[in-house]
Amino acid sequence: MGGIVADMAEWLEGEGIGSGDVVSVICPNRPEMLSAHFAVPMRGAVLNSVNTRLDAGTVAYILTHSSSRLILCDPTCRAIAEEAGQAAEVPCVCLSEDGCDSATGLALLEAAPRVSVDLCAHIADEWQPIALNYTSGTTSAPKGVVLHHRGAYLNALGNVMSLGFDAGTAYLWTLPMFHCNGWCHTWAVTAAGGLHICLDRVDPDDIFDLMARAGVTHMSCAPVVLHMLLGSEARAKRDASEPVVVATGGAAPTSALIAEMDALGFDFIHLYGLTESFGPASLRIIDGIEQGLDTDSRADLLARQGVRHVTAGRMRVLDEGGTDVPADGLTPGEIVLVGNTVMAGYLGDQSATEDAFKSGVFHTGDIAVMHPSGEIEIRDRSKDVIISGGENISSLEVEGLLHEHPAVMLAAVVAKPDPKWGEIPCAFLELKPGQSATPEELQSFCRDRMAHFKVPRMFLFEGLPRTATGKIRKVELRARAKELS
Amino acid sequence: MGGIVADMAEWLEGEGIGSGDVVSVICPNRPEMLSAHFAVPMRGAVLNSVNTRLDAGTVAYILTHSSSRLILCDPTCRAIAEEAGQAAEVPCVCLSEDGCDSATGLALLEAAPRVSVDLCAHIADEWQPIALNYTSGTTSAPKGVVLHHRGAYLNALGNVMSLGFDAGTAYLWTLPMFHCNGWCHTWAVTAAGGLHICLDRVDPDDIFDLMARAGVTHMSCAPVVLHMLLGSEARAKRDASEPVVVATGGAAPTSALIAEMDALGFDFIHLYGLTESFGPASLRIIDGIEQGLDTDSRADLLARQGVRHVTAGRMRVLDEGGTDVPADGLTPGEIVLVGNTVMAGYLGDQSATEDAFKSGVFHTGDIAVMHPSGEIEIRDRSKDVIISGGENISSLEVEGLLHEHPAVMLAAVVAKPDPKWGEIPCAFLELKPGQSATPEELQSFCRDRMAHFKVPRMFLFEGLPRTATGKIRKVELRARAKELS
Repeated sequence: MGGIVADMAEWLEGEGIGSGDVVSVICPNRPEMLSAHFAVPMRGAVLNSVNTRLDAGTVAYILTHSSSRLILCDPTCRAIAEEAGQAAEVPCVCLSEDGCDSATGLALLEAAPRVSVDLCAHIADEWQPIALNYTSGTTSAPKGVVLHHRGAYLNALGNVMSLGFDAGTAYLWTLPMFHCNGWCHTWAVTAAGGLHICLDRVDPDDIFDLMARAGVTHMSCAPVVLHMLLGSEARAKRDASEPVVVATGGAAPTSALIAEMDALGFDFIHLYGLTESFGPASLRIIDGIEQGLDTDSRADLLARQGVRHVTAGRMRVLDEGGTDVPADGLTPGEIVLVGNTVMAGYLGDQSATEDAFKSGVFHTGDIAVMHPSGEIEIRDRSKDVIISGGENISSLEVEGLLHEHPAVMLAAVVAKPDPKWGEIPCAFLELKPGQSATPEELQSFCRDRMAHFKVPRMFLFEGLPRTATGKIRKVELRARAKELS
Repeated sequence: MGGIVADMAEWLEGEGIGSGDVVSVICPNRPEMLSAHFAVPMRGAVLNSVNTRLDAGTVAYILTHSSSRLILCDPTCRAIAEEAGQAAEVPCVCLSEDGCDSATGLALLEAAPRVSVDLCAHIADEWQPIALNYTSGTTSAPKGVVLHHRGAYLNALGNVMSLGFDAGTAYLWTLPMFHCNGWCHTWAVTAAGGLHICLDRVDPDDIFDLMARAGVTHMSCAPVVLHMLLGSEARAKRDASEPVVVATGGAAPTSALIAEMDALGFDFIHLYGLTESFGPASLRIIDGIEQGLDTDSRADLLARQGVRHVTAGRMRVLDEGGTDVPADGLTPGEIVLVGNTVMAGYLGDQSATEDAFKSGVFHTGDIAVMHPSGEIEIRDRSKDVIISGGENISSLEVEGLLHEHPAVMLAAVVAKPDPKWGEIPCAFLELKPGQSATPEELQSFCRDRMAHFKVPRMFLFEGLPRTATGKIRKVELRARAKELS
């Protein structure tokens, strides 16, 4: 890859890209996208990877807000990139041959390796930005998270150690690289001398074919991708005797998911983190002794967000007064982070930055307990807590229970304003294909298994709105719940 | 180990040890020695690990030169530690129960783990010293190499990645921890969550027993230890189906050694580095494809010092004018290092420090070629080059050839002053038990295989003097050669 990267960096130099310039890229998981993760920082410039599912208006907003000098794209993203580029007056270059604006393109891939290139020649300060990543904004306008070289370097090494990347690694790109630079795996797999297998769309057939053909050892994705794999007939192609490590985040794998994945030879790592923490900040791995536990026990352990990444600083759980909660596995508090792998701040948003770093620690907004073992376990996003009759209800807890119901594929529980209770829990559900359930059945299922005040008062069966990165848009569901009578 | 370390740090606090204080320790590879590698830095203090084979006079010199506040020892090193402590007026504390000066000792090992200890609380600056290591001084008085936290942290992570340490690692301490803090493996194995197996003397019976009993996965040592293992009857205990990674340095493993070790299930990694580079700076590993090569071909590759450690900076080979030599595998130059894993300097020796860092790079004094693949291969220590009749002779090359002779166990070649030629090569040899050879045989063996000007003019069969760390004292051999008529 050395030659491709060096040539891309040279081409960027020719385009006038230098220290501190922002280069936006909107591209699926292609080799050019991976190269940009090295070539842009090599120039001392800042890579802004844009979500490929965004509309042109939002992309234009990001181009303007980030003062991008250039937007790179591939043919599949070209229409949006050009429209956004025109609106924001930012030149657009397509990195591929078909109807390409530029002669660079895939010709880069033909370049010969160059051993002696100094990747760091234009990097003057380890604290300078390496990347910008706009959050998908479940609750507000996109914010530009500024990530520095030092944090990216250390988090990449932490990933190598946590996921066990080495020169024999074959990493399948099921996770979008635009999602926090692929949780820093773009840099981590390269640091370990491993192989990147680019995948420009998530298709179960392709994925199972590549596993068989390319000896995939690792992949990362949200649980929703795993459900897609398990729901596909292509799973028959899977050779369970060739283990694949799956790092998952965003939601803990359920018992049912673990059992099915076990049978197919997948090993879970549960990661927790945010764009603001360069991706992974903590993890839960099932260790040698725990591998002998039954599925439910392992699921209980994997539901935890675990202990801090080896290269992360301290991870604490604080009460509202800023004191560490007791490590009793019961008392909730907010997860806060300090260390090298925390963002520099939000671009051009001093108020949001100060708010995030109030009292000198980074506030994740996630509510967790601290177990006696030193592991954290998330109870809720702070904004997702439902307060009903003065009692706090964890929407995650209710969703977790609903996911145990055999007919439920995906559940989201939000607060609905209520004149009597303040808020009441309201559940939105997608059912599994060919399955059915009634509100009464689900209510009874919940009442048998949890405190009655936590049981949703309303059950709605409908498709759940998602952000471009696949997160459920709870802000929309809250608006929808508010309108319901 | 958290509890032992925290208790030892508390005890050190009670002894008045704080930021910047030097704590010397002279102790074999025992748990207390390992704990000191964490407890002393926890106080913001500096660990000075002293070679256990030094005489009391040298230890006293080191205690005085380093301004040590305290010397810790175990009972086996107590006599020397006390004598040196008295001479240097430094208090001596024995870390073990028998006739112990202190109540701390092994009681530390009973301590309960403490999850929430902040190891970094007293570390104000990542550039502050973590350790002092006195070089064994093959050519001059011991120099105190100052190592900083930043370099130790990064080199430890580099070791994890290069040697493949993980939570399943069982690391056998055949390498002395006092030797550059065990090449930073003291910190590396812990960073990976692996198991340290302490070994307070190198005994083949113990080593093969531990391999069988404790599932050893990794060890490090000089080739001389491997020769000792192969020469022992205890090798019959070895189960070759349980692979052990052996990192070796100081001398490249020979074909014969590789073949014998292969048969016993050992995999080589050839490391190169200096105390000044926190131990490993580069390495050569036989990769997947190369594993199919025959023994001689693998030995040729493992003879190389390879490519830089992933966390090291740049490693270059420069000619006398300071220009990179061509990457042709032929042109010799001096290896120079830059990056985070280079020492801060020599304690209290500005002149030696400036000399080592002249023109802004660290000069290793080692002469190497750069292969087209970007790998370095050492040709000689610069001071070990023999200049005969205007031609440079690599003593390493001549020694390498002599090691191919079936009767030779160990060979050292040095310059002997000569009125006609300036210098002539002179060989000192230890023969294998039960083997014999004459000077005439060896001369003829060499003349058949190398340029005649390189062939030693004298062959002497006698025990080779060694430093406390097992390096051959060429300075003594040079003096000896000078006296010969």
